[in-house]
Order: sequence, then C-alpha cells, then structure tokens
Amino acid sequence: TSSHAMKETEGVSFVSDIMSVSVVTIEKDASVYKAAKIIMETAFNHLPVVSKDNVLVGIVTAWDISKAVSQNKFDLVEDIMTRKVITARGDEQVAVVARRLDQHGVSALPVVNGGNHVVGIITSDDISKLFARRH
Amino acid sequence: TSSHAMKETEGVSFVSDIMSVSVVTIEKDASVYKAAKIIMETAFNHLPVVSKDNVLVGIVTAWDISKAVSQNKFDLVEDIMTRKVITARGDEQVAVVARRLDQHGVSALPVVNGGNHVVGIITSDDISKLFARRH
Ligand SMILES: C[S@@+](CC[C@H](N)C(=O)[O-])C[C@H]1O[C@@H](n2cnc3c(N)ncnc32)[C@H](O)[C@@H]1O
Repeated sequence: TSSHAMKETEGVSFVSDIMSVSVVTIEKDASVYKAAKIIMETAFNHLPVVSKDNVLVGIVTAWDISKAVSQNKFDLVEDIMTRKVITARGDEQVAVVARRLDQHGVSALPVVNGGNHVVGIITSDDISKLFARRH
Repeated sequence: TSSHAMKETEGVSFVSDIMSVSVVTIEKDASVYKAAKIIMETAFNHLPVVSKDNVLVGIVTAWDISKAVSQNKFDLVEDIMTRKVITARGDEQVAVVARRLDQHGVSALPVVNGGNHVVGIITSDDISKLFARRH
C-alpha cells in the first residue's frame, strides 16, 4: 500500500514486508518422525501446527524434536508441540515483533490473520537480514 | 576499549558487544543423545563441537538432531555435525556478521580467537534483539 511505501522511506518496516509467506505447516496428528522429515527437507526450524481447517493450534520446532530425542518420546506432534503460541500480525512493526521474540525467548512467530489462520512466519533470521540491509 | 565506546555512540555494534560468552560446547565423540540433552537443558540450538584441547572442529544443532531423527541415525556427534564451520571474530561489526549468516543460511556463528578456540557464539536472536533496541 502507499502508506507502507511512505513509511518504508522513513525506515519503518512491517512484518508483512519481511515474513516468509511460503510457510510449511503440519497437522497435530502427524508423527514426530514426519515433522523431523519436513524440517530437514525445508531447512526451516519452526513448523506451525494447524487443525484440518488450517487454524493455528500449536508450534513444533527442531528444538522440540531434539528434546523428544533426549526423552525418548517419539509419538505424535501434539505430544511435543507448544500449545500457547506467540503470534504476530502482518501489519505490526518489525521492531515490536523483535521485542516480542526477545521477551518470550523464541526465534520465530507464526503470522496469523483475524481467523487465526497462518499466513506467514517471521523469524529472527529475517530480522537479522533486515539489520544487515540497514547497517 | 575506548575506540569501541566511541563507535558505540555512532551506532556501530561489534560482535563482542552482543555475543553470548557462556557458550556450551560438546566433544565430537559424544552421543547424539547427549547433544540432544544439552540442547534441551540449555535452550541453545547450536553447539560448537570442540577437540580435547578446545579447538573448534564442527557444529551440531537442533536441526541436525531433527535430521538424524528423520534418518534414524543415532550414533556420535561427529557423524551428524557440520565440519566446515562458518565463524566470526569478536572485533567484527554486527552488520558484517548478519550478512554472513544470511549468505550461508545459518542462524548462529561460533566466535573464535586466533587459535580457533571458541570464545562465544552470536545468533540471529542476538541481532534481532539489537534491532529491537535500535528501532
Ligand atoms: C541450513 S541450517 C538451517 C537451520 C537454521 N537456520 C540453523 O542455523 O540452525 C542447518 C544446518 O546448518 C549447519 N550450521 C549451523 N550453523 C552453522 C555454522 N555457523 N557453520 C556451518 N554450519 C552451520 C547446521 O549444522 C545444520 O546442518
């Protein structure tokens, strides 16, 4: 939008400017093994977990799978996922989201729309890349 | 140093200003299981792998362990680690290191001294945090 374009020149970036829209999700009744396979194939560390109708219900990460290994727990994604997901909106400022990542000690936030459907994902890698462009 | 302090006021940050110095390392003949346990306990995603004399010889991450799960491969850290490690120096500018992370598609760089000993680790989380402070 033109208001975005204007703000860009003032140095304000929005989540929608830098998020990945090609986010790969997984269903909660998938196996941990399948999640591991998707993480390997996509080189993503974070998979939003969605219900059949694509509503966000959790998040599973390479770290959760590593934790499952250390506990010998290899059942379903829903057994190892985090249910209380911290999210972002596309129209939020990147700096606000960077503070949210830090506050919660996480590296990625699924980006959701009003219906809690996943429309993207923003990671500290994306924000680091923006830092590189700005400095 | 005073030159650092001066540059700080000009908005230039160095790796040594924001890296973690309490970096946890692992030896290459440790088990994948042990690496998974350390990653779970420390909440670090990236473990530099070091020789007995603390020289950097690889890196193993939660992503590598997730990959090992998908391949049913649970032997030693040296079987799953990445040997060609991209590193940083403490006196490099953060922006330079942010570009290096992006170029190589990784989220963390061990920080080494002249003898290739690990003195810290810098992650895209650290850089995202710096972005949050600056904007
Ligand atoms: C392609 S990245 C994708 C996941 C994520 N961005 C990360 O860095 O964990 C995963 C691979 O990069 C490797 N890796 C991570 N940091 C590295 C570094 N500083 N130097 C070399 N390889 C690294 C890991 O060992 C793993 O095999």
